[in-house]
Amino acid sequence: MTSPTGYAARLHAACRAKNSVVCVGLDPRFEMLPREFTEGRDAGPAARAAAFSLWARELLDVVAPLAPVVKPQSAFFEVLGAAGVAALEATVAAARERGLLVILDAKRGDIGSTAAAYAQAHLAAEGADALTVNPYLGRDTLEPFVARCRDAGKGIYVLVKTSNEGSADFQDVGVVDGGLLRDRVASAVAALGATTPAAQDGFRAVGAVVGATYPRELADLRRAMPHAPLLIPGYGAQGGGAQDCRPGFAAGGLGAVVNSSRGLTFAFAKGEHAERFGHAGWRDSVDAATRAMRDALNEVRGG
Amino acid sequence: MTSPTGYAARLHAACRAKNSVVCVGLDPRFEMLPREFTEGRDAGPAARAAAFSLWARELLDVVAPLAPVVKPQSAFFEVLGAAGVAALEATVAAARERGLLVILDAKRGDIGSTAAAYAQAHLAAEGADALTVNPYLGRDTLEPFVARCRDAGKGIYVLVKTSNEGSADFQDVGVVDGGLLRDRVASAVAALGATTPAAQDGFRAVGAVVGATYPRELADLRRAMPHAPLLIPGYGAQGGGAQDCRPGFAAGGLGAVVNSSRGLTFAFAKGEHAERFGHAGWRDSVDAATRAMRDALNEVRGG
Repeated sequence: MTSPTGYAARLHAACRAKNSVVCVGLDPRFEMLPREFTEGRDAGPAARAAAFSLWARELLDVVAPLAPVVKPQSAFFEVLGAAGVAALEATVAAARERGLLVILDAKRGDIGSTAAAYAQAHLAAEGADALTVNPYLGRDTLEPFVARCRDAGKGIYVLVKTSNEGSADFQDVGVVDGGLLRDRVASAVAALGATTPAAQDGFRAVGAVVGATYPRELADLRRAMPHAPLLIPGYGAQGGGAQDCRPGFAAGGLGAVVNSSRGLTFAFAKGEHAERFGHAGWRDSVDAATRAMRDALNEVRGG
Repeated sequence: MTSPTGYAARLHAACRAKNSVVCVGLDPRFEMLPREFTEGRDAGPAARAAAFSLWARELLDVVAPLAPVVKPQSAFFEVLGAAGVAALEATVAAARERGLLVILDAKRGDIGSTAAAYAQAHLAAEGADALTVNPYLGRDTLEPFVARCRDAGKGIYVLVKTSNEGSADFQDVGVVDGGLLRDRVASAVAALGATTPAAQDGFRAVGAVVGATYPRELADLRRAMPHAPLLIPGYGAQGGGAQDCRPGFAAGGLGAVVNSSRGLTFAFAKGEHAERFGHAGWRDSVDAATRAMRDALNEVRGG
């Protein structure tokens, strides 16, 4: 049995091939979808879930040439119960069919055999390429996910410094032995990453989530985890700009992908692209917003 | 509109009515279910999910008189994808039909509108009574869940000190201003609880998870969060005993429920009850194990 190609190698190959580090977040909300998907589909969770799947497929057609990776947010699918989870499964499959990598944003975390069940559920062979995970329960609880990185070429992104204001409450607590809690978590990320195979550029399969809303912290954490792929949320709607993301990239301009959700997928709803293309031109506004983000990041990331 | 009865009041009424503080954990694993449910049902996720639902319903019939609350572990249902989530929904409904409260163990946590989506998904009017949540992202990310406590009579259990060995890695980190990280989280639990209505005995809707495997910490944390309902995992299979749980109870013998999963639901697979009742007598072994746990806790909890 040959080892599967590691997550970082696959991600970076995709970034190079598309000359893009954009991650398109898929946060479907029924009320916000283009009307062509919602009309006649408001009769319960199964109908709404069908709208999600149809929308996602068409959206993926638009963004596939412009982004290496998409990030479905599990919560918005879970709202629709089992029907929503079926729509999530269909969306992950549709992304893979279009050559997109998939980061499932589910922020799972639990102990022992329960963590193993989450890893099995969300990093299945035919499922997502990577999963966001929460470190609060401890390093041993990340191990079952790291095992999937080693054995199945999957990746994880551990929450280190999230983009919200309240992220300071616990993540930025000063630790008696020095540094902040997030530095502790970053050390664990680096150590766990070292147990996964290195890609040619040195990157490992254990990554970290660090918000674009904290550029100084992003620079510190990039140094602390030089071989961790970063997932940078907080771009656009949350206030982060391309310049804020610059410290997240390694020499060569890779090592991070930057996520935007509403700012891309619902670009038809407000702002410059909305005015230009109108509601019916939603595909064009997604296309224009994704290109603009791609180009803005390419300008700052170097490489 | 009258306010719904708060979670703590409903939980304590149920504990009194059944004279029990046992929480029965539902962690279905196909290979471990009694054969009568698995035979002929190994052909894919839908068949396995059907086995989960059937098993859970019969199990709930056995434990309903003996326990106030059950705790389905979402991960084991999520392993079966959408079919598993449908089985989870059916299990929650079956528990409620039998007068059981439901703590959904899903350890969710995310920011802003995503947290709100998780709260909507897992604390729906007809869904679980309470949800386990992860605090790492910060206090603001717990707020949408607390809002469901206030508005819909639901409860949450925030992870404070989990039962696993690695829980020390981050939860027990010493904080510069004094105390440990878990004490910080406990303060947030108490403060958030104070924003929810008090039950007659003073308890609030914001609870905490503290492992039976750490009895000293349990005593400290009980004092730090005098009105937080505690969910105590780690009993039985993980090594905690009734004596270890004693510090978790408030005067009056309430304020905490103690969870056991495998030790109750799979009591037919090994140990004294297995020998006595055999595989075919799985209902009797669940009944005996649950009664034994109930009685052991009643002996130590006072009240």
